[in-house]
This record gives sequence, structure tokens and C-alpha cells, in this order.
Amino acid sequence: MIYLDNSATTRPDPSVLHSFQQVSEHFFANPSSIHPFGGEAEKLLQRSKEQAAELLQVQPDEMIFTAGGTEGNNLAVKGIALEHRNRGSHIITTEVEHPSVHEAFHGLERLGFTVTYLPVDAQGVVSTDDVQDAITDDTILISVMHVNNEIGSVQPVKQIGEVAKQYPKLFFHVDNVQGVGKVPLDLAESGIDLCTISGHKLHGLKGTGLLYVKNGTTLFPLFHGGGQEKSFRSGTENVAGAVSLVKALRLTIERREVGIRHMSQLQAQLRDKLYTMEDVLVNTPEQKAAPHIMNISIPGLKPEVLIHMLGEKGIYVSTKSACSSKREDESKILAACGYGRDRSTSALRVSFSYDTTEDEINTFFQELKEAIGRFKAVME
Amino acid sequence: MIYLDNSATTRPDPSVLHSFQQVSEHFFANPSSIHPFGGEAEKLLQRSKEQAAELLQVQPDEMIFTAGGTEGNNLAVKGIALEHRNRGSHIITTEVEHPSVHEAFHGLERLGFTVTYLPVDAQGVVSTDDVQDAITDDTILISVMHVNNEIGSVQPVKQIGEVAKQYPKLFFHVDNVQGVGKVPLDLAESGIDLCTISGHKLHGLKGTGLLYVKNGTTLFPLFHGGGQEKSFRSGTENVAGAVSLVKALRLTIERREVGIRHMSQLQAQLRDKLYTMEDVLVNTPEQKAAPHIMNISIPGLKPEVLIHMLGEKGIYVSTKSACSSKREDESKILAACGYGRDRSTSALRVSFSYDTTEDEINTFFQELKEAIGRFKAVME
Ligand SMILES: Cc1ncc(COP(=O)(O)O)c(C=O)c1O
Ligand SMILES: Cc1ncc(COP(=O)(O)O)c(C=O)c1O
Repeated sequence: MIYLDNSATTRPDPSVLHSFQQVSEHFFANPSSIHPFGGEAEKLLQRSKEQAAELLQVQPDEMIFTAGGTEGNNLAVKGIALEHRNRGSHIITTEVEHPSVHEAFHGLERLGFTVTYLPVDAQGVVSTDDVQDAITDDTILISVMHVNNEIGSVQPVKQIGEVAKQYPKLFFHVDNVQGVGKVPLDLAESGIDLCTISGHKLHGLKGTGLLYVKNGTTLFPLFHGGGQEKSFRSGTENVAGAVSLVKALRLTIERREVGIRHMSQLQAQLRDKLYTMEDVLVNTPEQKAAPHIMNISIPGLKPEVLIHMLGEKGIYVSTKSACSSKREDESKILAACGYGRDRSTSALRVSFSYDTTEDEINTFFQELKEAIGRFKAVME
Repeated sequence: MIYLDNSATTRPDPSVLHSFQQVSEHFFANPSSIHPFGGEAEKLLQRSKEQAAELLQVQPDEMIFTAGGTEGNNLAVKGIALEHRNRGSHIITTEVEHPSVHEAFHGLERLGFTVTYLPVDAQGVVSTDDVQDAITDDTILISVMHVNNEIGSVQPVKQIGEVAKQYPKLFFHVDNVQGVGKVPLDLAESGIDLCTISGHKLHGLKGTGLLYVKNGTTLFPLFHGGGQEKSFRSGTENVAGAVSLVKALRLTIERREVGIRHMSQLQAQLRDKLYTMEDVLVNTPEQKAAPHIMNISIPGLKPEVLIHMLGEKGIYVSTKSACSSKREDESKILAACGYGRDRSTSALRVSFSYDTTEDEINTFFQELKEAIGRFKAVME
């Protein structure tokens, strides 16, 4: 199998799965139980927070464990909006967010909030000036993703953070689900109040995630209850999940420098090859894109057909993001970049991990070429 | 170790953990990915739903996988309230709910809803007449737990369901986290619209859960996003978690008949022993309580001290529910039953699993007796 769908999800690292299994087996107590067995579980949880905080260079009590990226994004966005609704009811985001942010904003519109959806340029990048201009006295939240999950463009998070800092009543949330391990981001130095991380995108397990909540920030919980996780996220803690997530994060950050260089090389090589094919249009920007995504369009060709043909050879790639694959045929992201329907309905996404090899990319490219050739022969 | 804190959480069944590990390793694709590897993951998820539905005798598309009981309760309660707020703003619950329901209702009060908190009798049981009387034209939700997590009392869910059925605009939610495998409940026949189940209370894994949502019921999602789980609970599905949960549920239901009989016997034996001790007051009702919980008070004795003394012998029991163990010293549940502070601040909860043995209960009883004796000797 040649797995090139790492933006949808990644293969769990065996050692991450092993940690999960060990903790589940030997430290299964409820961390809230006051007997010694509960105390051990609580210590493990606390140590996980400390390790996560060290890896992200923030404070342990700024780490809120969640069940994934979608939860993190919803907790951040709705948590701020509902908690601080007395301060204002205007919230800002972009037109290229993941559905877990985009739809959360739509949901808040139903609850009476007013949303500004900022446009992006042809590279999928929002303008910091546009963010600045959108802010009003009534604005309480800006949510902008770091790395786009479909085409890999990188938003000017640090500059937006500079703007956000000038408005003390406003919170800044960053969806960093696709950025961790791919494009470094200094949480503490970027004016960020909330930042979402998902375990299964970095060789961790599904059902695990982390939300950075800067000290002093308060949220209306999605899960009320026993008061766990500073009362922002009640529920019996998934200690094994937390330990496994932090392990995945550590492995990612340890391998990051080499991994980014490696993926950038693969990306550049693949780009050069793709440029030789006249049927293929490259959507991932040439400058400043994340290293693990290559999005292309083959106008006139249904991506489902290509995915099927490649799938028969054991090569797995995506159309758009997995999350919206089964709905409309157009990529909202490519449409927001200004591309027409021929291009926005014919996109394929190839996404790497640190372990992707040059051989795999070469095989993918050969098979892609052959598949397109076969398809065109049939159509002529 | 003698683990008698099964209402807080249970030891994961090794075969459940094994299933989780196998699926995580071999079927890690995103079920939303349209390549064949994604298709396999989707099939597993679908099969899990079918199995869960068969076990619960409901429909597969009524099964929504969650990350636990707290999420299920919050999704049910807030999901109904926010989605149907145009129909009315009055919601009803009891004074003995788990914090994940109780605090969710408090949260909704902050958002403008009006709540009736119904009292209970000395056995911790709500009156069906009180439920009926509380319903107004403005009522959209009744949430009543099945089995109480502190004292094991069982609510008249079926009768309340009969009442609820007479009001078509009203939804009925049941928190069945403590009831599954302990007190049978027929979902389809009890007028229930939503029912919460948690994996880690039935030898499944933390971070897994299930919400039954009767067909035709719509919810405002806590997690907006990619549209998974009928759009009620977006986010990349934790397929391994779902498979493991359904396995835990199957094992529980297979062992249920024998398990309930076994635990009832242990409970009766322990009760008889406890009745011989003049310092001990039994809070778990004698009639109609769930078989796995024995709640007692030892007035004048801080439960933390006893838990510590028993903990040193490797015997693990709780004070109140784990979820509220670290907050106020009074059990709200015992207070709601009408007990004074001497009794409501001195409670211990002993909770069994199918695997708890008579020997373990005998050892617990001996050590409890000895600990109380030692404590009293010191105090005299
Ligand atoms: C940018 C981005 N944000 C959020 C998510 C949602 O994360 P999760 O799948 O963990 O719910 C994803 C992936 O699905 C993503 O790519
Ligand atoms: C009755 C009841 N409801 C809900 C919950 C919450 O479930 P979870 O721990 O899975 O979040 C619990 C246990 O903590 C419980 O006993």
C-alpha cells in the first residue's frame, strides 16, 4: 500500500498505540477517585500536561485534552462566543476554514451572532489588512487556521496575532490541526489565545486532541459536568488517550526538522514532475505552502474515477478533504481561491508523512500518468 | 488489589483493548476517505452501529458514537434545548442527576432557559406525578437518569416515558450510564427519545460512548463540522473506539443475566453484614436499587480517612461519585434524599462488577470494621 492521504489521517505510531494499551491496562482508575490507584492515574494525566506544555513551550494548565480537532475547534469558537456574548456578538473567520470551524460559525449565526467570512487571494491566503478592517467594537473572536487542509497554504497567523493583540476584548483562535510538525508556530509569541491540535493527524490515535487555552481565557463549556480540565471540558479523563497523544506529539517534534526538509524535497520533486504534464494544474502554492500537501486539478476528469483507478493499484489519495468528500462535488477552498468549476471540481489531494519515500512518490506519479492516459484513451 | 470503585470506572476487558488495538493498527483510514482503505474503515463503523443497534433493539441510524457519558448527556440536553428553543424554553430534570446533566441544565439557565429541578423521596426516587405536574406548554425536555451513580436508586423511567409520550413537542432523555448491564431497560418501549451510554463504565475504554437518538429527533450539534454521525456529532470517527465499545456492550449484555444475579447476592450479603454494625447507616435503598452499588454513611468519620486506610490495604472504594469527589464535602444526592449533614458528609460508595467475588466483599467488610475500630480507638 502507498498511503498518500496523511492529511485525512495518519497511521498510528506503534509506540503510541503501545502507550495507550499500557495505560489502559495498568492505570485504568478514574483520576478523580481519591484512592491511591486514582492518584496514580491523576499523576499520569498531570505529567502528560507538563510534557505537552514543555513541547509547546506553554504552561501545563493551558493544556485541555479533547477528543479531537473538531471538538477543539468547536470548544474554542463556541466556548468564546457563548461565554463572552455580553461583550459583543460579532465574530470573524475566513472562507477557507475546515468545516469544523466554518459550520461552527454557521451554528453561531443561528444563535444570533454576526459573522464576517474573509476572502482569500489566489494562493488561499487571507490579508492581515482585511482582518484589521473587519474588526468592530462588537468583535469578540477571530478564528483563522494555520495550514489549510486542502491546498496547504499558510496563513499569516503571527501578523494577525499582532493585530488581535491591539484589541483586548477580542480572542484569537488558530486551528493548527494541519500545521503541527509541518510548519512551526510559536504559540506563546503569536498573540494566540486558543489553538487546536488533533492526535490522529500526527500518528496519534483517533479520539485524542488538545486545545491550548491561554491562561486568563474563559470558555462556556461544551461539556458541563464534574469540573475536569478546569471545568472547560468535563468528563472522566481519557488518561491513556492523553498519554498517547503527548507521545505522538513528542515523536513529531523530535523528527520535525528532518521531516520537514524531507517532505519539502518530495514536494519539490513531485511538483517538477507534475509541471511536465499538460493535463495537470497545480493548486498548492509554490511559495510558503506547507510541505506535506500537493493539491492538483485535472480538468475534465472526475477525481473519484482517478482515486478508484489508483486505489486498485493500492495507492490512496483524496479528493478535497475527507470531511467533505461525500457532499457537493466542488471544493469550496478552490472556489474561494478564484478558480472556476472545471478546476474546483476536479481536484486531487496527495499528502505525505515523514515516512513517505521518494519511491512511493515516483510510483504514484507513474500510475497517475498511466491512469490519466487510459482515461483519455477511453474518452477519445 | 480489591477494586470496588466500578461505578467510577471499570477495568477494560482485555479483548476490548485488543479490538481497539487491531482496528487502530490495520484499519486506520479515515472513514470519509473514498479510497478502498477508507471504505473498509467505513464498513467497520457501519457494522459497529448495526451490532450496537441489535444489542439495544433499536435502529442502526439511531446510534451516535460519542467520547463518553458526559458528552452524551450534554449533547442530548443542550442539543434538544438549542435546536428546539423556538418551541419553548422550559426544561425539567431531577435533583439527583449526575453533574454532567445537572451542570448542563445550569449552563442552559445562563442561556435563558427555565429549569424545574424535581425533588426525590428518601429512597432517591422522583415521583411520576411530580413530573406530570411540572410539564407546561413551554416544556421541551425532560431528563431523568435511570440508575443513580451514588446510591443506586432506580427511577421510574418507563412510567415517566408514558407521561412524556402524551406531549408530542417534548423530548425525553435518560442518562443510562450506570444502568447498562445492571438494570435492563427497553429503549424502544419506554417512550425514550435519547439515551446516554458510556464505554468505560462497562469494561470498555475511556473516551468512548454512545447516544441513542430516536429517529425523527433533531439536535443542535455540540460539534459542527464535516457532517459525520448524521451531522449530530462531526469529527473524524474513532472507529477503533466504536468497535471496542460495541464489543464491551456485547460482552456485558451476554453476561448480564448471570452478572445481575451474582451482584444482587453480593449486595444482599454485604447489606446483612453492614446491618450488624451500629456505626454504619446504609443509604442504598433496600427495595429496587441497582445491584452494583452499596452506599453507606459512618457519621462522625471523614470518608477520606477511611478511603486512605482501606487504600493502604489495596482496597479501593469511593466517597460520593468520583466526579464530584474533590469539591464540597456534602453529597447533594444524600441531601436531596433528606439526610442531614452528619450522614451526607460521611458517605462511602462501594461498587461491584460482574467479576467481584464474595471473598473480596468479605475482606472489604473485615477491613472496614477494623479501620472503623482503629479510628474510634484513636478518637476516644
Ligand atoms: C484543518 C483541520 N481542522 C480540523 C480538523 C478536524 O479534526 P478531527 O478530524 O480530529 O476532528 C481537520 C481534519 O479533519 C483539519 O484538517
Ligand atoms: C450517571 C452518570 N452519568 C454520566 C456520567 C459521566 O460519564 P463519563 O465519565 O463517561 O463522562 C457518569 C460517570 O461519571 C455517571 O455515573
